[in-house]
Amino acid sequence: MTTRLTLDQCGLNTGKKTRLHRILYRHGLGNGTALFLPYDQGLEHGPRDFFANPDAASPRYIIRLALEGGFNGIAIQIGLAEKFYWDYAGEVPLILKLNGKTEIPSDAEALSPLHATVADAVRLGADAVGYTLYVGTPAQERDFAQLQAVRRDAQRLGMPLIVWAYPRGAAIAAKGGKDSFYAVHYAARTAGELGADMVKVNFPHPEKRTAVPAPYDREYSTGNAVEQVVRAANRTLLLISGGAKAGDDAMIEKASESMAGGATGLIFGRNVWQRPWPESLRFVTRLRDVLAKYPTV
Amino acid sequence: MTTRLTLDQCGLNTGKKTRLHRILYRHGLGNGTALFLPYDQGLEHGPRDFFANPDAASPRYIIRLALEGGFNGIAIQIGLAEKFYWDYAGEVPLILKLNGKTEIPSDAEALSPLHATVADAVRLGADAVGYTLYVGTPAQERDFAQLQAVRRDAQRLGMPLIVWAYPRGAAIAAKGGKDSFYAVHYAARTAGELGADMVKVNFPHPEKRTAVPAPYDREYSTGNAVEQVVRAANRTLLLISGGAKAGDDAMIEKASESMAGGATGLIFGRNVWQRPWPESLRFVTRLRDVLAKYPTV
Amino acid sequence: MTTRLTLDQCGLNTGKKTRLHRILYRHGLGNGTALFLPYDQGLEHGPRDFFANPDAASPRYIIRLALEGGFNGIAIQIGLAEKFYWDYAGEVPLILKLNGKTEIPSDAEALSPLHATVADAVRLGADAVGYTLYVGTPAQERDFAQLQAVRRDAQRLGMPLIVWAYPRGAAIAAKGGKDSFYAVHYAARTAGELGADMVKVNFPHPEKRTAVPAPYDREYSTGNAVEQVVRAANRTLLLISGGAKAGDDAMIEKASESMAGGATGLIFGRNVWQRPWPESLRFVTRLRDVLAKYPTV
Amino acid sequence: MTTRLTLDQCGLNTGKKTRLHRILYRHGLGNGTALFLPYDQGLEHGPRDFFANPDAASPRYIIRLALEGGFNGIAIQIGLAEKFYWDYAGEVPLILKLNGKTEIPSDAEALSPLHATVADAVRLGADAVGYTLYVGTPAQERDFAQLQAVRRDAQRLGMPLIVWAYPRGAAIAAKGGKDSFYAVHYAARTAGELGADMVKVNFPHPEKRTAVPAPYDREYSTGNAVEQVVRAANRTLLLISGGAKAGDDAMIEKASESMAGGATGLIFGRNVWQRPWPESLRFVTRLRDVLAKYPTV
Amino acid sequence: MTTRLTLDQCGLNTGKKTRLHRILYRHGLGNGTALFLPYDQGLEHGPRDFFANPDAASPRYIIRLALEGGFNGIAIQIGLAEKFYWDYAGEVPLILKLNGKTEIPSDAEALSPLHATVADAVRLGADAVGYTLYVGTPAQERDFAQLQAVRRDAQRLGMPLIVWAYPRGAAIAAKGGKDSFYAVHYAARTAGELGADMVKVNFPHPEKRTAVPAPYDREYSTGNAVEQVVRAANRTLLLISGGAKAGDDAMIEKASESMAGGATGLIFGRNVWQRPWPESLRFVTRLRDVLAKYPTV
Repeated sequence: MTTRLTLDQCGLNTGKKTRLHRILYRHGLGNGTALFLPYDQGLEHGPRDFFANPDAASPRYIIRLALEGGFNGIAIQIGLAEKFYWDYAGEVPLILKLNGKTEIPSDAEALSPLHATVADAVRLGADAVGYTLYVGTPAQERDFAQLQAVRRDAQRLGMPLIVWAYPRGAAIAAKGGKDSFYAVHYAARTAGELGADMVKVNFPHPEKRTAVPAPYDREYSTGNAVEQVVRAANRTLLLISGGAKAGDDAMIEKASESMAGGATGLIFGRNVWQRPWPESLRFVTRLRDVLAKYPTV
Repeated sequence: MTTRLTLDQCGLNTGKKTRLHRILYRHGLGNGTALFLPYDQGLEHGPRDFFANPDAASPRYIIRLALEGGFNGIAIQIGLAEKFYWDYAGEVPLILKLNGKTEIPSDAEALSPLHATVADAVRLGADAVGYTLYVGTPAQERDFAQLQAVRRDAQRLGMPLIVWAYPRGAAIAAKGGKDSFYAVHYAARTAGELGADMVKVNFPHPEKRTAVPAPYDREYSTGNAVEQVVRAANRTLLLISGGAKAGDDAMIEKASESMAGGATGLIFGRNVWQRPWPESLRFVTRLRDVLAKYPTV
Repeated sequence: MTTRLTLDQCGLNTGKKTRLHRILYRHGLGNGTALFLPYDQGLEHGPRDFFANPDAASPRYIIRLALEGGFNGIAIQIGLAEKFYWDYAGEVPLILKLNGKTEIPSDAEALSPLHATVADAVRLGADAVGYTLYVGTPAQERDFAQLQAVRRDAQRLGMPLIVWAYPRGAAIAAKGGKDSFYAVHYAARTAGELGADMVKVNFPHPEKRTAVPAPYDREYSTGNAVEQVVRAANRTLLLISGGAKAGDDAMIEKASESMAGGATGLIFGRNVWQRPWPESLRFVTRLRDVLAKYPTV
Repeated sequence: MTTRLTLDQCGLNTGKKTRLHRILYRHGLGNGTALFLPYDQGLEHGPRDFFANPDAASPRYIIRLALEGGFNGIAIQIGLAEKFYWDYAGEVPLILKLNGKTEIPSDAEALSPLHATVADAVRLGADAVGYTLYVGTPAQERDFAQLQAVRRDAQRLGMPLIVWAYPRGAAIAAKGGKDSFYAVHYAARTAGELGADMVKVNFPHPEKRTAVPAPYDREYSTGNAVEQVVRAANRTLLLISGGAKAGDDAMIEKASESMAGGATGLIFGRNVWQRPWPESLRFVTRLRDVLAKYPTV
Repeated sequence: MTTRLTLDQCGLNTGKKTRLHRILYRHGLGNGTALFLPYDQGLEHGPRDFFANPDAASPRYIIRLALEGGFNGIAIQIGLAEKFYWDYAGEVPLILKLNGKTEIPSDAEALSPLHATVADAVRLGADAVGYTLYVGTPAQERDFAQLQAVRRDAQRLGMPLIVWAYPRGAAIAAKGGKDSFYAVHYAARTAGELGADMVKVNFPHPEKRTAVPAPYDREYSTGNAVEQVVRAANRTLLLISGGAKAGDDAMIEKASESMAGGATGLIFGRNVWQRPWPESLRFVTRLRDVLAKYPTV
């Protein structure tokens, strides 16, 4: 049986523990699990993501959704944080997303440039910062350099560091793709080795086995893959993301498997807000029901 | 009906609000709208732009035009600001354009290098700084890094940041071009996400639909496109630019649609000064008549 | 008729005005004109330039020539300044050339790296610094970044900034070449926009019209071209350079046209010192005779 | 006969000598030899290395193995150090590995980016820092720049610097490969010239002679090659690594030859932990038996 | 007749003059000439250079040779200086070589990265620093940037700067090669222009005339070429290097021509130590006999 990681085990300094405690025990279900609302698609994909539900183009709408839905935090870029968070400051934890990019230019050397600093996050009352790391990108050298600078500031200022660990690049594409068990497994480990306090990964697909290293070229159940990914993160709290919008039942099933496998929480964006408000809340209720079954005390 | 954004809603610190209030309510019509005179073409295109009206080669002539025409501000580079603004200091707000480039070398990796700092702007009594962001350029990484540094200085010094958000690069050219609704929409959103206080965009062309993402491959009226661009900017004041010189009636029509769609103001350069002085003033009067219909109180 | 620019009109701070006053009114003819002796060819072209007059290989010889010839300043690199200027310190103004390169590697991405700082110039008692800007080079981004740093130091330390504005690169070569009216016109404007206090350009050739932009594809007299170049520099004092050695009468003719067109001065190197000492002085006398006709009071 | 290097001969400042004394005389056999456990494979190769013994995926398991096996130190990345070292702080010396990379992107310009600083190592109570230098990589310029910064911090803070000197790159591959006598010999010398206090090299293979420089294209015994590598390191303590898992007897033979040739110690990872715990300890006992024969007093 | 440069003429500040005086008048022959022993081949070429005389692999051996041979200084990298100079500190001047590279990766964009600082040299009691400049390399921009930083630190700290001025790159190879009169002449001038206090060049070969600029495509005696190289260095003390090992008589002849031509000294490495100790000393005696004939008083 899987034992879920507790905050005491994560090697956190006082500031980091204070802020993560606030996120995990003073917001959302307050049971040590996490449900995050990411809202950086306006930059990452452009406004095209909002045509499915035009109201979702408004950050104010999204923050209100996070509040009403009982999320543990909302992840946004500096511009939106400066303009929209003040109205609801303190009511829902802010995760300041420090880097991001548009999808317009070529992704061949994927790198997500910094737009804000950990000090910005402190100034805005954020409870965590987010950094997108493209594990496997040819731009690895610059990506790691950026991450190091963020990690040091986060350590110094007691700010939890959440790493969006996304496999990316030609070598990944050639070996099972970006959500293969192999890729997700390696990504989780990398984030942990490099000092993430929390890591966000995609749901692993053990059936994607084209040209993966030998140990991955066997049958694994999804549940087993999730468990191994959680273990690879080592004392790094793990979030599983929903990705592009898909069927609700399939999503809830993934959420359940994630939590059963030892994840600390879920991070769902488009699956939540690419539909009308009442439907969003209904879906969120189902996600919360899953989380309620996996308290960490 | 469109509600125009007010300064109270923009998440501005005291210094930024002070300066923007001065621009919007103490100059021009003083009704919360803006009419800016950009004058960086001597660097961006070279002196060839001045043959249509040789007097316009003189920054002194242009500043006097801004004064007589009742503009809310004039945007120039550091060299011209140092040499010409003293004579009229305080009479018309200075927007120090911080970056710029010549059109001579290849534009394939478009990037506009910095020539001055926010501290230079403070020293010169400027009320805002301008930064050209090439949304979609392959040089995105360096562009975003420059913007971040400017944003942080602007935040620290209470200086409003106006982003010239220009779609650019092979991927943009291949998807509807730089003034498609898609491109302008994305550009406005990007500036807002990354911390612009005000954003300048080109007038959107919803009819340019070659290879744009699905949601843009439908019929939109120009008015609707403008409204959506304004909304995509989120609490970022929006300016629509005139671009290259064209027919006056068409320009005035665009200006009206822009303001009706929720823009805060207009930024017209060559359409204003590539003609004799009296004609310039007549055209400006028509622009002011448009602005007078859209006060923000 | 051309009105020559005075120091009062140039937007100079006290330190810059002090030093330029010293150069223009306390040295040379003392009438507001300038005659400079550039001596960076040993680095830019290598010692091959000195075979025509081996004595000219010695910086000491050159400084003595500047003194005897009544020049307003001598432009040299840091190494020569450290070793040779002390002997004549204060007797002739020093213009510390801050950047330079050898002609050995490919010029395709022309950039002139920095070798000294404005603070070095202050320490050595210099009255100005010189910076070579390759207008139009593919390395524009790095070139502008260097220039910005120099401009800021010069502003802070009250040191006049002289920009060697040289059109360069494939795009320039394809459009009339580096001394076309188009190229020189654009170069002068660029230096002024970016904060030069004085700009050095080549003598413009309006007859070089291959593939230039439309407004330049007409007949202009040389005199008219010079006047327009002076005007494009805007309140930036303009120097015209002699370039490679050519016939004396042609050179004097160019010098006269330059001054008649509104230039502040001349900068002649190889035409002066690639000949025996007495001949050098005779040629300098002719240049001074030209300058004497264009006092700025 | 080989004389083993003593700490007194290594040009160490007080802080470095204190920490190396602790590693060599207060831990492990306490006889001046060293047995290190490297554990950066989770980042360098990914979790695939742990399938042979899944328990080894846990840093806690590895640290306990280091303790029970009587190692002189364990080398891990910052993320694992922050989360796992506290539990056993001071019980086994920590070597903070400062750089590292994943194996996913192309290795053509091999460079290992920094993830932590010497100051991080001081804060965590580490007794040394580790840096991977890819001797021969086309990225030599950036690699040497990183190393210089680390060396200076290490000197200033009295922290021993262990360089993982790995030959790498096309030129190495073409001349005997990365574990040829030629390559290892050059790598050891390079680390010593550039300021390593201790250097880790692969076991040299004098029989790999394809296209090596003339002096290496002769027969050398392995023992002689090791001796020369030790000598090339000059007053830099030398460690020989085990590399990928291979037969135990062969490994012990290599270990013996290394120590006989003058090495200060051994660094074995996968050969130790890619097997069950009792087997690991049995193998470690054999390694310690070798070390016991080569005390440095 | 050639007049040799004296320290008084070199534009040195007090610290630089103190240290150069120590090198030139308190060591070696004490007559103002210099004989340096360079020992960076272990890094530049690798240990293959030591097979001719295995004892020479030891820095201790080399320092003792410098002492016994009465050299004016020894040039080594930081790692060797930290570990070996203490034993003989003050007995022979230390020239800390600040940059260097291995010969393994491609030399197409030759650049020698920094490994130590001028402050390191001060800390170690060095009397000069050495910097390798690859005159003509395509990496000229980065090379000059490094040199500038070193020059400024050296000026600030009163540390003499010796530039190893090596012509390098495709353009050099195509025009007479790296030891043509043209290349060496240009290299000497470049070092002087950029602020070297002393410059090391290869012996010039006026007979290498393939594709050199016109003035070099004539007959020059070796002696004349040396004189011109000395003159091109301008008040920069000049050293001529021995290069790869060659016949003794030819070497002594070169040494004599160098000193007769006005050089301040010689720098011989492999010609000295790629032979047994007694032979080394015999050869050094011959070099000293040459130097004794050219005192600078």
